[in-house]
Amino acid sequence: MAENDTRYAFGIDLGGTKIEIGIVSDKGELIDICLLKTMDGPEAIQEQILSNIAILRRKKGLKIEGVGIGVAGQIHPITGTVIFAPNLKWHNIPLKTIIEQDTGLPISVVNDVRAIMFGEWFYGAGKNEKDLLCIFVGTGIGGAVVSNGRLLTGFSNSFGEVGHMTIDYKGPICTCGKKGCFEALAGGWGIAARAQDMVKEDKQGPASQMLLELSNGSSHKISAKNVIEAYRKNDPMAIGLIQNFQEALIAGLASLINLYNPAKLIIGGGVIDGFPEIFPLIKKGISERALKAATNSYELTLGKLGKGAGVIGAAASIFKQINEGMGEDNNV
Amino acid sequence: MAENDTRYAFGIDLGGTKIEIGIVSDKGELIDICLLKTMDGPEAIQEQILSNIAILRRKKGLKIEGVGIGVAGQIHPITGTVIFAPNLKWHNIPLKTIIEQDTGLPISVVNDVRAIMFGEWFYGAGKNEKDLLCIFVGTGIGGAVVSNGRLLTGFSNSFGEVGHMTIDYKGPICTCGKKGCFEALAGGWGIAARAQDMVKEDKQGPASQMLLELSNGSSHKISAKNVIEAYRKNDPMAIGLIQNFQEALIAGLASLINLYNPAKLIIGGGVIDGFPEIFPLIKKGISERALKAATNSYELTLGKLGKGAGVIGAAASIFKQINEGMGEDNNV
Repeated sequence: MAENDTRYAFGIDLGGTKIEIGIVSDKGELIDICLLKTMDGPEAIQEQILSNIAILRRKKGLKIEGVGIGVAGQIHPITGTVIFAPNLKWHNIPLKTIIEQDTGLPISVVNDVRAIMFGEWFYGAGKNEKDLLCIFVGTGIGGAVVSNGRLLTGFSNSFGEVGHMTIDYKGPICTCGKKGCFEALAGGWGIAARAQDMVKEDKQGPASQMLLELSNGSSHKISAKNVIEAYRKNDPMAIGLIQNFQEALIAGLASLINLYNPAKLIIGGGVIDGFPEIFPLIKKGISERALKAATNSYELTLGKLGKGAGVIGAAASIFKQINEGMGEDNNV
Repeated sequence: MAENDTRYAFGIDLGGTKIEIGIVSDKGELIDICLLKTMDGPEAIQEQILSNIAILRRKKGLKIEGVGIGVAGQIHPITGTVIFAPNLKWHNIPLKTIIEQDTGLPISVVNDVRAIMFGEWFYGAGKNEKDLLCIFVGTGIGGAVVSNGRLLTGFSNSFGEVGHMTIDYKGPICTCGKKGCFEALAGGWGIAARAQDMVKEDKQGPASQMLLELSNGSSHKISAKNVIEAYRKNDPMAIGLIQNFQEALIAGLASLINLYNPAKLIIGGGVIDGFPEIFPLIKKGISERALKAATNSYELTLGKLGKGAGVIGAAASIFKQINEGMGEDNNV
């Protein structure tokens, strides 16, 4: 295909701490990108997005067909309004309308994990697959499901809310107020919370010393990263915590494979990226724990798009919307 | 529509203890039914099915368009072979081919829970819904999922295997060999097993007496039914067991609502049918435990088709196959 057949869109990954805005081709190439620190409040953020879109557009001089935006939150499937985004502290922000009015371009607003799913599905580790599951283990745990060639959205656009699946119904309390959710035991914040609990139980005794050193003496500041560091230094408390994390993660992923029966499970997210030695252990654990009917021919893999996944995937979502002429109902 | 526009098919519910064979109209009416005790071995069972189909066909003199068969087991999506049916002790029985060759009719072989889903979806509690979840709590726990108007089957035809979702990753061992599966805590066999464990722990002491009386003194014969009976008589051990069952059932169902985001959850099965007073408690528990995003507008309901659901649903599956001209790929 000739160079001038290539099409372009903006892909935006809107997070609580940073915003990435990229120009992406319809082949999944990242042409240019700018990285911004997220400002406070919806007006400031909208202004950040709009001014940087304008700058990139002028700079590259490419014909841009649309804007895809991935947001860590709950998106209205028809209006593209951000119903709730805890990291941004947003409630009912009509993001799609605002960006649409300013740019005059087609806009899709999608949940951030679904954006990454679009990227991996069209250009990455899930290319040409019809049955895919993406699980991202970061601070929390998010998921997206493609089944028989379609991204599943559910009745109220919350299909694949995996982070609050119960894996220990008498377990520790989650941020949602319920007991033993997947992310309370295997998400980044959950690993940190379990470590903090254990140090408190130990009354900051000798067994807690390495974790306390790594968190500069503040038990309430112990992070998942500290636990992984201490584990790598063979600290017994951290080894116990990581064994528990591993067991919980495997139980949760095996359940999801039983429930969604994918051909491929793509895993990623900050915790997995920062702890690559866990991958073979997860792989082995899932094979042992999930049902044979579901795992006989499935494959576990890491995402292929790496750090650009959010931006490339957000752009993929708007290409998909334009190609399918789907209009409003692609805000997933 | 005139009477002679009505179409008819056989619906068969093939279980480990009984076989139900019915003639069902395309309006979901059960015209006639025969109930057989399941014989031993695949040849005997096939003969039971074929001879009773022939008898019913002659008796009614209706033009029959096809045969739908629901089997509690894993079905090959292309060939309609029963890959594994634990209750029947079947491995790789080419059920579809056998019935097809003898009757000359179009055949669909479907998993029994999916058969019930078809029935409730086309004629029962899920009529006209696009996003449905059916959960059946019998000896084990089975599930079927309709999303955006399609029954989901997954990559290897095991989508919705809910019984072995982990709800207590350090919990009691399941029949599958893993810890804390949904059905090991909230299925009929799981309720019985937990009761038997507790009586053993109590060394058949005074606290165990009511459960032992109800099972004629044999701790290994205590059934879910016995536990429910003892609970109704305010036996403290049974009350504890039922509270635990209830908590586990609610945790599992709330997880499934988060994961599949249905407009309607239809529950049924022997345990629910035999314990109707649990329904309002489950309803309340799910509302408290599942995420608001998923439960805001969902509805919990019992199946409408009752005991005929398996037969009507199996017939619905063959009507669907014929209507869609789907041929082989409807053996779900």
